[in-house]
Amino acid sequence: MKKIIAIVGDAKIEKDGPKYQLAYETGKALVEAGFRIQSGGLRGVMEAAFKGAHDAENYSEGSTIAIIPSFDPNDANEYADIAIPTGLDVFRNVIVSNACAVVAIGGGAGTLSEIANAWALKRMIIAFNNVDGWSAKVAGTRMDNRVRYPDIPDDKIYSVSNAQEVVKLLKERLHKYNTFHTSIPKDS
Amino acid sequence: MKKIIAIVGDAKIEKDGPKYQLAYETGKALVEAGFRIQSGGLRGVMEAAFKGAHDAENYSEGSTIAIIPSFDPNDANEYADIAIPTGLDVFRNVIVSNACAVVAIGGGAGTLSEIANAWALKRMIIAFNNVDGWSAKVAGTRMDNRVRYPDIPDDKIYSVSNAQEVVKLLKERLHKYNTFHTSIPKDS
Amino acid sequence: MKKIIAIVGDAKIEKDGPKYQLAYETGKALVEAGFRIQSGGLRGVMEAAFKGAHDAENYSEGSTIAIIPSFDPNDANEYADIAIPTGLDVFRNVIVSNACAVVAIGGGAGTLSEIANAWALKRMIIAFNNVDGWSAKVAGTRMDNRVRYPDIPDDKIYSVSNAQEVVKLLKERLHKYNTFHTSIPKDS
Amino acid sequence: MKKIIAIVGDAKIEKDGPKYQLAYETGKALVEAGFRIQSGGLRGVMEAAFKGAHDAENYSEGSTIAIIPSFDPNDANEYADIAIPTGLDVFRNVIVSNACAVVAIGGGAGTLSEIANAWALKRMIIAFNNVDGWSAKVAGTRMDNRVRYPDIPDDKIYSVSNAQEVVKLLKERLHKYNTFHTSIPKDS
Repeated sequence: MKKIIAIVGDAKIEKDGPKYQLAYETGKALVEAGFRIQSGGLRGVMEAAFKGAHDAENYSEGSTIAIIPSFDPNDANEYADIAIPTGLDVFRNVIVSNACAVVAIGGGAGTLSEIANAWALKRMIIAFNNVDGWSAKVAGTRMDNRVRYPDIPDDKIYSVSNAQEVVKLLKERLHKYNTFHTSIPKDS
Repeated sequence: MKKIIAIVGDAKIEKDGPKYQLAYETGKALVEAGFRIQSGGLRGVMEAAFKGAHDAENYSEGSTIAIIPSFDPNDANEYADIAIPTGLDVFRNVIVSNACAVVAIGGGAGTLSEIANAWALKRMIIAFNNVDGWSAKVAGTRMDNRVRYPDIPDDKIYSVSNAQEVVKLLKERLHKYNTFHTSIPKDS
Repeated sequence: MKKIIAIVGDAKIEKDGPKYQLAYETGKALVEAGFRIQSGGLRGVMEAAFKGAHDAENYSEGSTIAIIPSFDPNDANEYADIAIPTGLDVFRNVIVSNACAVVAIGGGAGTLSEIANAWALKRMIIAFNNVDGWSAKVAGTRMDNRVRYPDIPDDKIYSVSNAQEVVKLLKERLHKYNTFHTSIPKDS
Repeated sequence: MKKIIAIVGDAKIEKDGPKYQLAYETGKALVEAGFRIQSGGLRGVMEAAFKGAHDAENYSEGSTIAIIPSFDPNDANEYADIAIPTGLDVFRNVIVSNACAVVAIGGGAGTLSEIANAWALKRMIIAFNNVDGWSAKVAGTRMDNRVRYPDIPDDKIYSVSNAQEVVKLLKERLHKYNTFHTSIPKDS
């Protein structure tokens, strides 16, 4: 199976602004690097990333997966190839967060919850440091002191400023983030 | 977007038995008819349907979607092209149920909950009448007295005995099942 | 902790009909027997059971727990002491189902999904046999062939016709239904 | 109905440390002010708050509600009066967040997700500024630029250092936070 990378961020952005451009380039670069991409499936960063995926050289139908909050697949943006209408409203953020890795571009409270969930679920996280919103605030930091992977001493939210850095980091490090969440222990 | 049809049923079946054969043929026929298929992504009927999809003439990678109960995409069976590891345990049955239509092949309590959910979510439901389990018990019946679609006076769980009938029914009737669930009204 | 028993059934019923009466008496009898009761928190059987609880001799505020589908606690009926607004829409049925035991009074597709979930979650289930709807159809039967409790050879959905039988069954058998669901095994 | 206030924070803390003391005092003060309290139901801050509730002068059984991640009510700490075993693992954080108000005491990624969810769900949020962890980092700030309540121009995460300030803020302001989340709009 191709691995799935989530792209999260602002739901409302200018179509000619830097976040749209970065999301577009990241979506395109990730598909060209052999990944599928997944997002919340609606507008803003979610749409820009899917548009970029469609413009990837090796794009094939099925590269973009929309994890929709409603029960209606028609709520997905026009570049969604596959819509999973979860019906989970804000709970759907957790499913988005559980991709093989999560890339954050700006974002408000919803995006922050996805970053925090991704950390708790032991996923690799990459955050753009050159746009306003939560991605820049948490880029290069750790969400808390837990040791998620003893064999990754410099584990943190990786800080990037362009799509090429995202792909480079995934190639170097994604294979190390190989543990999936099982269950919350009783004492935590 | 290609429409997604769910196939649900027993998780433990004989590989040379009738349920495996029917699930295989249904998965194959649905992909050949232009649909993607979705299931709970594990074994039994879920696996057989995906295997059939892979043997469809027009199969392309991305035709099979596994809605996994755990957070681990590696729990999916070997014929899953796309794994959505929901982490929702039995709650994930609701997401499986919310496909454009649901086809049931046998099944125990889990399958029954999926059929009941699909009914509440206003989805088209098709049930095999020639295998043991819940699909045969409910084939041709209604889950309750609610009028789901006033313009479908004979709305019910459609009864079939082979994959060709499934495809025929979907071609004739799926377009009528065009309403997606919004929210539970306060008085129900 | 007091044990919590769920009461499930039709959301729309006549206030002077047999289902309202049975739900009222069951809610009352369960609180008098030392239990808290839980329901989906809306109308019909859910409301009647809570009204009965309020008329129990030993009623204390906190005896009725409403597991609401929306995010708004004000959606609960007037006899709800504690509202848990889950925001889970139809997914909330699974939480309702996971009480220490589930008592069904009539019901359509939603109730059936709760009975099926309760079976999968290994809960004790009691169904009224003397009202129309799913409770009477499944009373005295089993949802599937799985052995839920090897030490309960006659495990099934217990069939009752009045509130006293519900309490008697719970006193005799509830302590045996002591296993809580952990996770769906990969092969099921 | 009594209103329910959530207390969130670290799951592992020293029993003689400042977080335990603050959580204890907050749980006690909230029950004495007429509220029920709710938490994730496990250890650390969740347990300390419930212990405090039990020592409130007007404590009555039913004051503490444990929203458990597993399906097993026995996972709740010993001061839980009512256990709701959700089976939702990390998704249960959203339900915890949807109390009438949320009080944060320290906390890692899980707590941060609860604060972010509470913000998205339009709940009143109060954070202790005098303990390490996310509560101090976000105290006095806003999660993003959305206008949650036009009639609360100074809406933010309120910053406190003791239990009395928590109660004072709730008395002054909780009635203004009267809007409950309905659904994620398609364009966000």
